[in-house]
Amino acid sequence: MNDVHYGKPDARFKLTRVGVSGIRKPIVVRRQDRETRLTATIDLYVDLPATQKGSHMSRNVEVLEEAVNEAFAEPTGGLEVYAAGLAKALLQRHEYATFSDVRIAADYFLGKSAPSGRKTTEVYGLEASAHGAREPGRIRLKKSIGVEVTGMTCCPCAMEGARELMAAEKPECSSALLGFPALTHNQRNVTTLKMDVPDGSDVEADLLIEIVEEALSSPTREILKRRDEAELVLAAHRNPKFVEDVVRGVLERVVSRFAALPDDVELNVRSVSQESIHKHNAMAERVTTLGELRS
Amino acid sequence: MNDVHYGKPDARFKLTRVGVSGIRKPIVVRRQDRETRLTATIDLYVDLPATQKGSHMSRNVEVLEEAVNEAFAEPTGGLEVYAAGLAKALLQRHEYATFSDVRIAADYFLGKSAPSGRKTTEVYGLEASAHGAREPGRIRLKKSIGVEVTGMTCCPCAMEGARELMAAEKPECSSALLGFPALTHNQRNVTTLKMDVPDGSDVEADLLIEIVEEALSSPTREILKRRDEAELVLAAHRNPKFVEDVVRGVLERVVSRFAALPDDVELNVRSVSQESIHKHNAMAERVTTLGELRS
Amino acid sequence: MNDVHYGKPDARFKLTRVGVSGIRKPIVVRRQDRETRLTATIDLYVDLPATQKGSHMSRNVEVLEEAVNEAFAEPTGGLEVYAAGLAKALLQRHEYATFSDVRIAADYFLGKSAPSGRKTTEVYGLEASAHGAREPGRIRLKKSIGVEVTGMTCCPCAMEGARELMAAEKPECSSALLGFPALTHNQRNVTTLKMDVPDGSDVEADLLIEIVEEALSSPTREILKRRDEAELVLAAHRNPKFVEDVVRGVLERVVSRFAALPDDVELNVRSVSQESIHKHNAMAERVTTLGELRS
Amino acid sequence: MNDVHYGKPDARFKLTRVGVSGIRKPIVVRRQDRETRLTATIDLYVDLPATQKGSHMSRNVEVLEEAVNEAFAEPTGGLEVYAAGLAKALLQRHEYATFSDVRIAADYFLGKSAPSGRKTTEVYGLEASAHGAREPGRIRLKKSIGVEVTGMTCCPCAMEGARELMAAEKPECSSALLGFPALTHNQRNVTTLKMDVPDGSDVEADLLIEIVEEALSSPTREILKRRDEAELVLAAHRNPKFVEDVVRGVLERVVSRFAALPDDVELNVRSVSQESIHKHNAMAERVTTLGELRS
Repeated sequence: MNDVHYGKPDARFKLTRVGVSGIRKPIVVRRQDRETRLTATIDLYVDLPATQKGSHMSRNVEVLEEAVNEAFAEPTGGLEVYAAGLAKALLQRHEYATFSDVRIAADYFLGKSAPSGRKTTEVYGLEASAHGAREPGRIRLKKSIGVEVTGMTCCPCAMEGARELMAAEKPECSSALLGFPALTHNQRNVTTLKMDVPDGSDVEADLLIEIVEEALSSPTREILKRRDEAELVLAAHRNPKFVEDVVRGVLERVVSRFAALPDDVELNVRSVSQESIHKHNAMAERVTTLGELRS
Repeated sequence: MNDVHYGKPDARFKLTRVGVSGIRKPIVVRRQDRETRLTATIDLYVDLPATQKGSHMSRNVEVLEEAVNEAFAEPTGGLEVYAAGLAKALLQRHEYATFSDVRIAADYFLGKSAPSGRKTTEVYGLEASAHGAREPGRIRLKKSIGVEVTGMTCCPCAMEGARELMAAEKPECSSALLGFPALTHNQRNVTTLKMDVPDGSDVEADLLIEIVEEALSSPTREILKRRDEAELVLAAHRNPKFVEDVVRGVLERVVSRFAALPDDVELNVRSVSQESIHKHNAMAERVTTLGELRS
Repeated sequence: MNDVHYGKPDARFKLTRVGVSGIRKPIVVRRQDRETRLTATIDLYVDLPATQKGSHMSRNVEVLEEAVNEAFAEPTGGLEVYAAGLAKALLQRHEYATFSDVRIAADYFLGKSAPSGRKTTEVYGLEASAHGAREPGRIRLKKSIGVEVTGMTCCPCAMEGARELMAAEKPECSSALLGFPALTHNQRNVTTLKMDVPDGSDVEADLLIEIVEEALSSPTREILKRRDEAELVLAAHRNPKFVEDVVRGVLERVVSRFAALPDDVELNVRSVSQESIHKHNAMAERVTTLGELRS
Repeated sequence: MNDVHYGKPDARFKLTRVGVSGIRKPIVVRRQDRETRLTATIDLYVDLPATQKGSHMSRNVEVLEEAVNEAFAEPTGGLEVYAAGLAKALLQRHEYATFSDVRIAADYFLGKSAPSGRKTTEVYGLEASAHGAREPGRIRLKKSIGVEVTGMTCCPCAMEGARELMAAEKPECSSALLGFPALTHNQRNVTTLKMDVPDGSDVEADLLIEIVEEALSSPTREILKRRDEAELVLAAHRNPKFVEDVVRGVLERVVSRFAALPDDVELNVRSVSQESIHKHNAMAERVTTLGELRS
């Protein structure tokens, strides 16, 4: 059959990214000696030169099908390693491309504990990316892993305001109250941390999730009996955080925990509080490198 | 041209609803002597007899286009009146149908006040429905209006738990603390109230929004300066509500406010708290009639 | 600790459904001797009597956690059996409730073939429900399974219109053209079939997926090389379908395939075409019972 | 009241963007001497220096409220002018910030015609952005406007494949068929074009919408009577387009139409086909400048 894709394009412009998006696939990865099955959503792109009409998109899906089958036979690394394998295979199969781009998102589950030690299963989001670049004689790969953590923030500003209001209303209570945090608004917060994973580094999704949970007012847990609930609420109020504080808390822990990583590691931290006192959200973000944070 | 729709179907089954969904349209309605422009999402359905292959769906969109134009020329009622007009026109245009079903959803804005009296603009959701039934010599219409209100709930259970925990930790504080609500988790809550609108009744979206806002721990406001924020937070903690309480509070106000409406008025109240201590939501719902609630 | 939930409510109204929604969980089920792992989204509700302030929602999540652990140890049935087990456990744990309602949705993957026989992995949606009712001395359970299938519809009406237009333009072509289907608009279609699963029946998700795929103009496949693509397109044009035809085609196959099932089996078929010539969708639906369809 | 925001942060890192997201507002703009009311979703951010704990987010919402009121009193420009006004006001109000970022998205409606000339109302998406940068003695502003257009693509590759298949099946038909396009898969496509709007330029949303509609296989229309539908389908098949072709067609028209604009104008074109033969989407994108396209 005559392959239209190899024909001449109507207009001579190269394209930055061409491919398939929103593929749903069951995949298996190996994280810390543990096999994990994920239901993933995958995007696969390459660039397209100005001289070629179309990209062979069915090759993207073939590359994925083969990778999925191989990984089920022998899972070998985390989600970002999986993405890097796809980014490499895309450049091998699309001989005309110089660049490949892969994104994989999936829900991810970890066993955690409530304050009482009771076991719960918690859901997190993972997002791995990989980019391949064709260079003379080789394919250069860059990969990153991101985590999305749902937790809780307690507002420090409203807490100070409520404390003042309560002290004005009942001055005799103010000193007693000072022993406890005042009431404030608190809410569901979604914080993401995404960073490059240099080869041989110990950047790992489970660790990034821990870092984010520590930077929130409190992590949330799916099962909380009455005492657990009260303890979590009190602990969160003793640790009030703006979205700004959450992002800086993550940055500080990343700088400290990953002292051995090179300066050019890129990272992105974003925290969104679904404000309980407003209909809109509050957001803070830092896009940076480890080098910038260290200077 | 040969019209395939009037042909014989492959299989002789009537269909419950056939039509178009997800039409986006700018519309204008008249609410309480005030013209309101809305960007609406509209679904339009009729039933289809077993003897006919297809419904003429382009007629649905024509009916809508005409109604939109007429309403821009002379807006005459609320969103549910608009929906009822469409339900009637659908049955006039689809001579083979015995039933029509119309849904219109739109964002809606009202001027409200922060505790300080400062003016803010708040967003709500509207959802109007209408059903038409062809009866001998006439078309019978039934219409309803629903509101979706985003507000705040403070958990009464965690408040009691935190009070006990704090009293155990510092017994000397407990009496002082009793003068104020204890801290608790609070969160964004989305509550919907939908009810039939009998002809000539005074059921009105603005009033339903007020009823729901009163039943929450607190309404939320888009602009809150520091003192407003502290006052809203304190007021909400003095009014802790489960989702169950919110639904019952709405039901109570509806029964009291609409004493003149007939027993067969159907209503649906649903409250969802986006829990700040969990990753999942809490939900309570009542599907009922005014008659049931009065008995 | 003092349990606020058992307290008296502000207003004496029973509630239809109270519980938790949007819980994400990895679960395992057994379908046709094959273990399947799913990432599920789960809602768990019971009713609440007028005399009790709140439902103990943490029990819902405990019930789920236990069911998940048991099923990983020994998976015993399909997703609707899983839901029924949850519906039963909810009534055992909520001693005040008379009714329970469970919904589980998950993506589901099956190996299928392209026209050439080439293997592909296809994604479908599953939605299981179960309702429990407390009766004197026993709990009565009702369960259902639903499938969501993405496929392709080719419009019969535009095909007839295009044929007439082409014949008018080049009369000499018309007879030649009659040997092939004319061109038409075709598009992504999402069709759902949901039905009750009586105990001991052979209603099975894989079979429902087959029934829906047969009723579409064509199923879609993730990997199609050039010849596969052309064959699928030609086959789909030889089988043009309105959404009305798709729903009726599913109904016909269900009636024929499940002749042994009782008349009171409820079912719901819904087909939505994401029209390629419009910005809105076309929808057809039938809500019915096997008895109604047979009469 | 003691303002916590001005306090010292826990960790000394500046933040890239801090603010509010997802604010819904009714706004009014002036496009080509015509007042247009929009229901907008708005994000408002500034940066935050390392020395300050929190950003005063309520100022963002105040800035918006004032802008909305002023524009209702006297609308003065397109949506990107509106965004630029907000970006400027944010820097005036946040004295500590050096950068501001504003995004406004809204549905937008235009009167269009079906092939027969029949009038229809079509929905499009608008997305305006503006960035403010504080420079010595002045605020520098950069603004852009984007359009999202839903239309139709017909696949050229499957058309060639179907033609070959049909010719092999009935060789006598092949010459007759050559007079008409062969059948192929076609589908809903969503294409976005976003570009900088230099001061005094004639970049206008309505024109960008026209450019995108011309680059698709066919625009779609909400009301198509039978002949219109057949004509649109035939015209689209005579103009088959990959997503790659759509992006290049837009680029070509932009280069030609905006010859007077400077080289540093940035633009982004993205086309996504919701494939009717697959469950996933096909995507092509170019991120570039006018200068790059001209070279």
